[in-house]
Amino acid sequence: MAITITAFEASPDRGQGLARDMRVRWALEEVGQPYDVRLVTFKSMKEPPHLALNPFGQIPTFEEGDLALFETGSILLHLGEQHPGLLPTDPDARARAITWMFASVATVEQPIVELSFAYILEQKEPWFEPRLPGLKDRVRNRLNQLAAHLGDADWLDGDFSAADIMMVHVIRRVQSSGLLNDYLTLTAYVARAEARPAYQRAFAAQYAVFEASKGDDKPL
Amino acid sequence: MAITITAFEASPDRGQGLARDMRVRWALEEVGQPYDVRLVTFKSMKEPPHLALNPFGQIPTFEEGDLALFETGSILLHLGEQHPGLLPTDPDARARAITWMFASVATVEQPIVELSFAYILEQKEPWFEPRLPGLKDRVRNRLNQLAAHLGDADWLDGDFSAADIMMVHVIRRVQSSGLLNDYLTLTAYVARAEARPAYQRAFAAQYAVFEASKGDDKPL
Repeated sequence: MAITITAFEASPDRGQGLARDMRVRWALEEVGQPYDVRLVTFKSMKEPPHLALNPFGQIPTFEEGDLALFETGSILLHLGEQHPGLLPTDPDARARAITWMFASVATVEQPIVELSFAYILEQKEPWFEPRLPGLKDRVRNRLNQLAAHLGDADWLDGDFSAADIMMVHVIRRVQSSGLLNDYLTLTAYVARAEARPAYQRAFAAQYAVFEASKGDDKPL
Repeated sequence: MAITITAFEASPDRGQGLARDMRVRWALEEVGQPYDVRLVTFKSMKEPPHLALNPFGQIPTFEEGDLALFETGSILLHLGEQHPGLLPTDPDARARAITWMFASVATVEQPIVELSFAYILEQKEPWFEPRLPGLKDRVRNRLNQLAAHLGDADWLDGDFSAADIMMVHVIRRVQSSGLLNDYLTLTAYVARAEARPAYQRAFAAQYAVFEASKGDDKPL
């Protein structure tokens, strides 16, 4: 069945692959499934047709026949159940991979989103600078724990899985802040993921959207 | 197989059922599975035996034979796959329930945790009061979207599911701030959940731990 996802018409990350559609594109490339992309604006994301797909007005959404999903973790889990290559077949290993999918968004991404919001919403506030060290410490705490868990392993739990797509994408979001550079374990983990052909095809696809949006002469 | 979960020896919520073990207790009561509870202190949660179960040093964890999981979403999904009553049998409805499980922790809980951290970590900071309205607006934005989605429905998507356990527990965490009282839809949703016998048994079980901890004469 044909798959359609949504993505930003003009991503605020300027083609760095940091928007969350990247997780779904990457997973679809891992399992070799073609997909269509419907581009949305910040305005149209908050309007009824998009809210019917995601009541929180975010991208990406996922449509396949009559099924409509949102939340990248849920979409990747669905793909992993339909196609080999994203989830272990052993039931215990599969359950642990799902644990790491939840950990990515519920535990590791939490302080990373807080840090992003500080930069986006509070950079001109008098408390921005004094709050920053505490916020960064909370991100570092999670990165320390994640690096300790990874150790010498290539992936979070045995073979590469959808959990690695989630986690790598989450921690790539702090790369620009320089926070990741203190962790050789984590930069190597991200590099290992970025070397995958499926990652590269997904990255190129989202980058092409960014390139096209520049030609539009529209404000970001 | 015997199930063991972890919970706070002395929960900082003082028996209100706001700690995350409540989600797992509730789910176990819904499916009628007995379980043991191993109580942990804030100190022991950060020590190697607990970190081997959850590298982020949080409760609850879940052990069943050789399988060890963390993250409440993952534990509830595992239980829902083993026992009827937590996930729809229709594949599309099941996928949508999983979407809502992720939405609870990744999207709705995000600003709620931020608000909690402001109260816990920053209440004495000069920026606490001026930041508060913006933080509360971000929580209200999610509550508005959730209330709009629920409308007149009893549960998030058709029948009661593990997604409702997750979402009800997440939004109960803003009850004490008074933010929830503006939403008749959401207070009715929470009340409907709290009326379930399984919820009440789980609540009583965690409350008994709190009562016992008072007798210990230990600092919270």
